[in-house]
Amino acid sequence: MTLPKKDNFSEWFHEILQFAEIMDVRYPVKGLYVWFPFGFKIRQLVYGKLREIMDREHSEVYFPALIPETELKRESEHIRGFEDEVYWITHGGFSPLDVKLALRPTSETAMYPMFKLWIRNHADLPLRVYQIVNTFRYETKHTRPLIRLREITSFKEAHTAHRSYEEAEEQVERAIRCYKEFYDFLAIPYMIIRRPDWDKFPGAVYTIAFDTIMPDGRTLQIGTVHHLGDNFARTFDIKYEAVDGNHYYVHQTCYGISERCIASLIGIHGDDFGLVLPFEVAPIQIVLIPILYKGKEKEVLGFCEEVIERIKNFKYFIDLGEERPGAKYYRWELKGVPIRFEIGPREAESREVVVSFRNERRKFSVSVEEINEEKIKNWSEEIRKRLREGAIHSILQKLKFINDLSKIDEFIRSSVVLLYLCKEKTCGEEIENRGGKLLGWLKELPDFLNYSLEGNCLVCGEKGFLAVTARSY
Amino acid sequence: MTLPKKDNFSEWFHEILQFAEIMDVRYPVKGLYVWFPFGFKIRQLVYGKLREIMDREHSEVYFPALIPETELKRESEHIRGFEDEVYWITHGGFSPLDVKLALRPTSETAMYPMFKLWIRNHADLPLRVYQIVNTFRYETKHTRPLIRLREITSFKEAHTAHRSYEEAEEQVERAIRCYKEFYDFLAIPYMIIRRPDWDKFPGAVYTIAFDTIMPDGRTLQIGTVHHLGDNFARTFDIKYEAVDGNHYYVHQTCYGISERCIASLIGIHGDDFGLVLPFEVAPIQIVLIPILYKGKEKEVLGFCEEVIERIKNFKYFIDLGEERPGAKYYRWELKGVPIRFEIGPREAESREVVVSFRNERRKFSVSVEEINEEKIKNWSEEIRKRLREGAIHSILQKLKFINDLSKIDEFIRSSVVLLYLCKEKTCGEEIENRGGKLLGWLKELPDFLNYSLEGNCLVCGEKGFLAVTARSY
Repeated sequence: MTLPKKDNFSEWFHEILQFAEIMDVRYPVKGLYVWFPFGFKIRQLVYGKLREIMDREHSEVYFPALIPETELKRESEHIRGFEDEVYWITHGGFSPLDVKLALRPTSETAMYPMFKLWIRNHADLPLRVYQIVNTFRYETKHTRPLIRLREITSFKEAHTAHRSYEEAEEQVERAIRCYKEFYDFLAIPYMIIRRPDWDKFPGAVYTIAFDTIMPDGRTLQIGTVHHLGDNFARTFDIKYEAVDGNHYYVHQTCYGISERCIASLIGIHGDDFGLVLPFEVAPIQIVLIPILYKGKEKEVLGFCEEVIERIKNFKYFIDLGEERPGAKYYRWELKGVPIRFEIGPREAESREVVVSFRNERRKFSVSVEEINEEKIKNWSEEIRKRLREGAIHSILQKLKFINDLSKIDEFIRSSVVLLYLCKEKTCGEEIENRGGKLLGWLKELPDFLNYSLEGNCLVCGEKGFLAVTARSY
Repeated sequence: MTLPKKDNFSEWFHEILQFAEIMDVRYPVKGLYVWFPFGFKIRQLVYGKLREIMDREHSEVYFPALIPETELKRESEHIRGFEDEVYWITHGGFSPLDVKLALRPTSETAMYPMFKLWIRNHADLPLRVYQIVNTFRYETKHTRPLIRLREITSFKEAHTAHRSYEEAEEQVERAIRCYKEFYDFLAIPYMIIRRPDWDKFPGAVYTIAFDTIMPDGRTLQIGTVHHLGDNFARTFDIKYEAVDGNHYYVHQTCYGISERCIASLIGIHGDDFGLVLPFEVAPIQIVLIPILYKGKEKEVLGFCEEVIERIKNFKYFIDLGEERPGAKYYRWELKGVPIRFEIGPREAESREVVVSFRNERRKFSVSVEEINEEKIKNWSEEIRKRLREGAIHSILQKLKFINDLSKIDEFIRSSVVLLYLCKEKTCGEEIENRGGKLLGWLKELPDFLNYSLEGNCLVCGEKGFLAVTARSY
C-alpha cells in the first residue's frame, strides 16, 4: 500500500486521511467519520489557535444541540435554507415526541430566544459569544471527510449583537481580521469574497466568505461572516433599551469556521510523501533519528541527549525503533513532522546535526551550539513563509484572469476565473450559464493578486467589480 | 432577588446556577440547558484537569454522535438497558431514513465496530482511548441541570481493550486511580462501591461506581468503571492474534464521568453566599478590591500594582467599579472567587494586604513581601484541604451505621445507611423493600470511615460486606 500521487487529488485526499491516521473513513454510516488519536491532536492544535484568537473578544458558551421545531421554523427565510437537510428526532425511546426536535444545523434559532432574555439595555451590548460544537446536515450529495459531512464535529460559530447596523458592520470587519489571522497562521492563502445576494446565508443581509483553492482547482469555502441586520432580532424580538430610554432591535452578525480548515491544511500543504504541517500545529514538531552503528551507540545517544536538552520545550520524539533510518524517515514524513534531526556517529563527533525540513526535503547541517529556542522559532516562521509561498504558487497556476467574454468558455470549467462583473443578477446568470459558479466579488485584493478591483462588466459593459467564478466543493 | 438558603438544597441548587451564571435554565426544552460564559470557564478548567489525567495513558479521539439502529441493537443486553431512553432520528429533511439513527446514549456501539478494524494482534493492545462528547438520553423522570439531562454536554467516556480478563481488571484499578486523583483535586469525598449484579451497566461483568453525598442527603453517582469481559468482543467480533499465533477475543473496560462532577463541585462546596471553588478551577482566582478614599487613590492604586506584580501568574481581577466595597464582596463571593485582597489606605501605608478566603470568610493580614507564587500555592492547597474537611464533616452527618435490623426503618429513608450485607439478591431485596436503594458494597474504605469491610449479613447472618443504601439522584 502506498499513497497515491497528489496529482490524483481526490484519491490522494481520501487515502492520506487513513494513511496518516487523521480520520478513519470506515464508520458504517455515510458522511460520518472517526477522528484517530493523531488527527485529533492536529484538530486540538488548530482549534486551540482559533480559541486563542476568539477568546480575545468573545466568550465561549454552549447551547443545546436540540432545537424544537417551533423555534427552528420562526425565521421563514432561514428555515427555507435548511429544511431539506435537517435531521429530525421524532421519538424518545418508543414514544413519539410532542414537538419534533431538530439536530442543530447551526445555532441561530437555539441562541436567539436566549439572547432575548440576556439583552436588556445598551450596557449588555455588544454581546459576543462563540461555541465549538457538532452540527448536523443531512447531505444527499457526495459526502467527503472534513469537507461535506453529515456530522460537522467541530463547527466554531460566533454570534454577536450590537446597537446599530453600523456597529454590526464594524464587527464583520473584526471577524474578518480574526479569520485572516487564523488562516495566515495556517499558511493558507484565501480570497475574501462577498457572495451574490442570491447566494447569501438564509436570513442574512449579506455574506462574506473566505475561499481557498484546492489542488484540483476547485474552491473550498473555509469561513463565512454574515451581517444579519435586524432580521433575526425582529423574529425573536431581541430589543435593548438605549440611553434615550427607547427600545430598539439589536443588529446581529454570525460567523463560522468548520473542520474544512483542516481539509485545507491537509489538502494544500500535503505532497506525494504525505502530510506537511506548519510547525505550530504539528503533534510532533521535531523527530530525532539516531543512526546507530555498533560500538558507537553510546556516543550517538549521548549526543542526542544533549540535543534534546536544547529542544525540550518543543514537542519532540526520539525514534529508537529497530527499523532502518529510511523506514523512519518515510513514516515521519507521512505524518508531516516539520523538522527531522538525523544524528549518527559523524554528527556526534563533529557536534553537528543534520536537519531536514519536511516541506522542502532539503538537508543541511548545523552545529549543536546553534540549536536553541530562538533558532527553532525562526525555523518555524521560515517554514510557514515557505508553505504559504508554495501554496500561492500553486494557486496562481489555477487562476485565470479573463477580460474577453469570448475566451470564457475555454477556461470557466477548468480554472478559477477572475473577471469584471456588475452586481446585476442577469449578468451573473449569463456567466453561470457557461458552467462556472459565481462565488462573488473580491472584498479586497489578496497580496498574491495584482489587478484593479474595478473594471467594466464583461457582460453588460457597465461599472463592474473583480469577481470570481469557480467549480467549488 | 436573593439566593435561597442552602438548607433548602433543591431550590438553592437550581437558583445558584442562574445567580452565579453557571447555566441558564430557561432554554425552551425540558432537560436542556445553556452554559453561560462563566459556567463554561469552570467546565473548561475542570475538564482540563480530567484531560491532563487521562492523557497520561489514553489517547483522545472522536467518534460520530449518530449510531445506526443495526449497530446499537447488536448487543442485546446493552440495548435493553437503553432502549427506553434513546432518541431516534427518523427523517433527514422531508425523507424518512432507510436505517434509523440513534443519538449516542453512550458510545460502545459506535466504537467497537471500529475497534474490530483497529485491533489486529497483541502489539495493538492495550488500546486506551477516550472522548469528551455530548450524549443524549430521553429522560422522562424529573430533569435537573448538570444531574439529569437530556443532553449530557460533556461526557468523558474511556474505552479500553486488553489481552485478558486479568489485564482488563488491572485497567479497572488504573481507572479508579485516575478518578480518585480527579475527585481529590476537586476536594470531593467519594465512596467507591461495587454495584449489585442486578444493577450493573448493561453488558458489563461488573460495575464499580463513585458515589458522593449531596447536602440533602441523597447520593450522586459521579463516575462509573465497568469491566466488560469479552461480552462486547464476542458481539462485535474483536479478536487479536496472540504470540502463540492463535486468535482470542479481547477483554474490555469502559468508564465515564459526566458533568455531574460539576454538580458535586457546586453542590458540596457552595454555601448560603454562593459558589465556593477550589483555587485551581476558579475562573477568577484572586480578586483585588481597592478601597478608595478621596486624596488617597494614588497610594492605594500604586500599592495594588505592586501586589498585582506578585500575583500576575494567577488569574486575578482588580475590581475598579463604582460600587461600594460591600457590593463587590457580595458579587465575588457569589461567584466563588477563592481569595480576596482588600487594599485601602491603611494597607498601602502599612504595606499589608487584608486577605479573605472565600471558603472560610475569615480575614487576616499579610505583609506584601510575603505574597509570592509559593505562598499562593500553599494557600491553594490549604483551601483544598479545608474544603475536603468541610465536605467530609457534612457527609458524616448524613451517614448512619446500622448493625441491628430493627433500627433500619428509622433511618433508611432519611440517611445514607452503612450495614453488613451478603451478596444474595434476596437479602438485598429485603433491605430495598424497606425504602432505601442498595448502592452496593464498598470496594475499599474511604479515609473518613472507620469500620471493618466485613461483618455478618444483617438479614441472613452469613458472611457479609460493608454495604451502602441511600436515596440517590
